[in-house]
Amino acid sequence: MAETRQWHLASRPVGEPTEENFELVTVDRPEPEANEVLVKTLYQSVDPYMRGRMRDAESYAEPWDVGEPMKASVVGEVVESNAAEYDEGDIVTGDLLWAEHAVADAGELQRVDPDHGPISTALGVLGMPGVTGYWGLNDVCDPKPGDTVFVSAAAGAVGSVVGQLAKLSGARVVGTAGSEAKIDWLTDELGFDAAINYKETDDLSSAVKEACPNGVDCYFDNVGGPITDAVWPRLNVDARVAVCGQIALYNETEVPTGPRKLTKLIETRATVEGLLVSDYQQRWGQALQRLSQFVQSGDIQYRENVVEGFENAPDAFLGLFEGENIGKQVVKVADGQHA
Amino acid sequence: MAETRQWHLASRPVGEPTEENFELVTVDRPEPEANEVLVKTLYQSVDPYMRGRMRDAESYAEPWDVGEPMKASVVGEVVESNAAEYDEGDIVTGDLLWAEHAVADAGELQRVDPDHGPISTALGVLGMPGVTGYWGLNDVCDPKPGDTVFVSAAAGAVGSVVGQLAKLSGARVVGTAGSEAKIDWLTDELGFDAAINYKETDDLSSAVKEACPNGVDCYFDNVGGPITDAVWPRLNVDARVAVCGQIALYNETEVPTGPRKLTKLIETRATVEGLLVSDYQQRWGQALQRLSQFVQSGDIQYRENVVEGFENAPDAFLGLFEGENIGKQVVKVADGQHA
Repeated sequence: MAETRQWHLASRPVGEPTEENFELVTVDRPEPEANEVLVKTLYQSVDPYMRGRMRDAESYAEPWDVGEPMKASVVGEVVESNAAEYDEGDIVTGDLLWAEHAVADAGELQRVDPDHGPISTALGVLGMPGVTGYWGLNDVCDPKPGDTVFVSAAAGAVGSVVGQLAKLSGARVVGTAGSEAKIDWLTDELGFDAAINYKETDDLSSAVKEACPNGVDCYFDNVGGPITDAVWPRLNVDARVAVCGQIALYNETEVPTGPRKLTKLIETRATVEGLLVSDYQQRWGQALQRLSQFVQSGDIQYRENVVEGFENAPDAFLGLFEGENIGKQVVKVADGQHA
Repeated sequence: MAETRQWHLASRPVGEPTEENFELVTVDRPEPEANEVLVKTLYQSVDPYMRGRMRDAESYAEPWDVGEPMKASVVGEVVESNAAEYDEGDIVTGDLLWAEHAVADAGELQRVDPDHGPISTALGVLGMPGVTGYWGLNDVCDPKPGDTVFVSAAAGAVGSVVGQLAKLSGARVVGTAGSEAKIDWLTDELGFDAAINYKETDDLSSAVKEACPNGVDCYFDNVGGPITDAVWPRLNVDARVAVCGQIALYNETEVPTGPRKLTKLIETRATVEGLLVSDYQQRWGQALQRLSQFVQSGDIQYRENVVEGFENAPDAFLGLFEGENIGKQVVKVADGQHA
């Protein structure tokens, strides 16, 4: 019988995850039942939110079970189909497993058209991160021409979309990132008005103040922690804050503390709203259509950091917390007919 | 020439204000010019937000100047009128001074009808605190029947209005206060479903959890600090938080710290919004009309803690930080013809 490999959660991390928390397991390749297809993974996504699923705690994403395969968005090729909608060779995307092969119900999958560009973008600019950036910015932050939009993790999969969309809205755009290569990409290629290398900045508060002489009208917060502490005091009256991620805090073992900033909200009547892309299921296609137009026109650029080899998927995930990726972090698992 | 007395800001407090920060000054009684009236103060308001005006820092309320009279809402009697709209003996309210007499432009004043109830209520349930509670609850929190509404400083001028309005909306209402007398008022007379004496509670988190078995849908935050730390973890999906005051922090000399809770907003997609009643200037009358109906029908009850004597105004203000008041803290400055 044919086999396949899966990454299982070996143990729950305490603090920063390590390779010890992952186990590569060889299992029998599953067989599709009626209305199911067998998908061969070509690209697998790793995303910061997965850190939350490693915890045994109630949250927006269900925790993974120890000893079980972990879940991930993948782009893959249908290699066996018992579903009328899909033929062998079709390229699909869906929330499957950290696995070289997985079965899926036809209803769980979306078709990816290889003629529209690299299929891996279905995990990034034309996938969950892109849609997150699109609705997070447009629904929660709602920037207007002349507004200053501040985005943290600006060179990441979500942040880079947010910043470019904000530029298209006529805003002044400022971001943070953790390397000079990222800063250069933001300012030289993506059109950011200013970018702050937070790893090389002693005084973040002054850096934010200098980069945002008219204050901050919209803050798209992917990171939390000290960057958020530096941005909140610059919020303008009626500012809108989208809390999308708090990666600075995900690996903390004790509840982290920081300055209490809520009084600033009274001063400014700012609104702070948590953001979860699954709330936009009904408007997913609308975002994808726009993003696709902007990618084709060149108005939105993207980068991917492709880690080769399924065996390196945990490393790719751990690299997110080191900020090693410019743009979307993806794992290339196999070549397909079209890839 | 007739004289009057004013309280001046003698110095800016560092930390908790003391009587040393106030100076009682006797000055010539001012004379009204064209379109002005001279108002004899009958009741003067003291409010927690005044602590911010003692600071020399940019905020929503302009700082008071050292050596100058402080500002306050008052209810008073027109004793001299150069304005067509007002006659001697009229009862008015407006933002005037910590003073026994003050002149005001006719346009700065609103008329108070003594036949509608005690005139001091124009500083409380039928004034700024009532309107704050009305729009803060209805516009920001927007409770629905069955929702759990949590309000801190629930026995204060704003909180007691918020809790009763929330009950009228069909919500389950839980509040915090700092004495058994306040707790009794909330639960026995105002209809709160539960109330927590935070000064007698070792484990606020457990107390909030127990009092809110279905979580918290609306949180009206007057206090901040440890109470907020205990409430945020109980926020439900799509919860609405109105940040109205942070009295727990107003006297801190260094930036206070606390747990970083923003990740909770991602889990819940809750919205946190700062609230300032001056944004509701256009809808002030609408709130007053409703509140007035509810007071007359008995659906909203109120209490006032009346401190007698203009010389005791600083004490009345300082008492706010000790939580000595049940309901609205007012200073009775003089008897009027109607009061």
